Amino acid sequence: MTRPGGILLFAHGARDPLWARPFEAVADRLRQKAPATPVALAFLEFMAPDLPHAGRELAAQGCERVTIVPLFLGAGGHVRKDLPLLVDALRAAHPQVEWRLAAAVGEHADVIGAMADVAWAQAGAPTPPRR
Amino acid sequence: MTRPGGILLFAHGARDPLWARPFEAVADRLRQKAPATPVALAFLEFMAPDLPHAGRELAAQGCERVTIVPLFLGAGGHVRKDLPLLVDALRAAHPQVEWRLAAAVGEHADVIGAMADVAWAQAGAPTPPRR
Repeated sequence: MTRPGGILLFAHGARDPLWARPFEAVADRLRQKAPATPVALAFLEFMAPDLPHAGRELAAQGCERVTIVPLFLGAGGHVRKDLPLLVDALRAAHPQVEWRLAAAVGEHADVIGAMADVAWAQAGAPTPPRR
Repeated sequence: MTRPGGILLFAHGARDPLWARPFEAVADRLRQKAPATPVALAFLEFMAPDLPHAGRELAAQGCERVTIVPLFLGAGGHVRKDLPLLVDALRAAHPQVEWRLAAAVGEHADVIGAMADVAWAQAGAPTPPRR
């Protein structure tokens, strides 16, 4: 029997607890969409759990495959340097799991389009936007 | 004659120039949607222009109203403390312009939904998501 793949959302973290709300909302949305899919949210700093702990939890749940999705808009050093090292450590710690590292969400046209639509709506567009 | 309102996108900035690509893509998308609308992109740190310079440019273009849209997912100290002070300074420097501060894009359901959809797609969803 193939167990379901898990989704591990990865965000930066901040000192202000309110900061995490959009990321928790993404996790909640995924859990509503796919109740059978294990979904975890981890942070680089300031907030818990971190990636090693959240990854261990998904491995303990029996995930054979986990996709790590960086909830970052810009992909700088955190996404392109820190995160691959953390994923290497997960692979070493849990070799029975296939750990897949996805591109940052900000690289995706649908997320860019959603941000542009929101900006346009907030500006109180006087005429409908051209799509 | 009422001149068009402007849109001032505000992002964090980073040392890595590639980091800015998604934010530039949002600005490009808006310019394609609404060629008559002045659109500028400004950064809190590391990248240019900063908010005072970009705001001055939009004021010089004759904008009577400018909506400042924070391209942040989480709203922590940068959005809730630093940015309002920067906007106050714009209001003092350019009182002929109506400066409107929008909520961070990460607070919007459409952006959260787009991130969840992207995460789901990247996880190689075995069955279509429930909407």
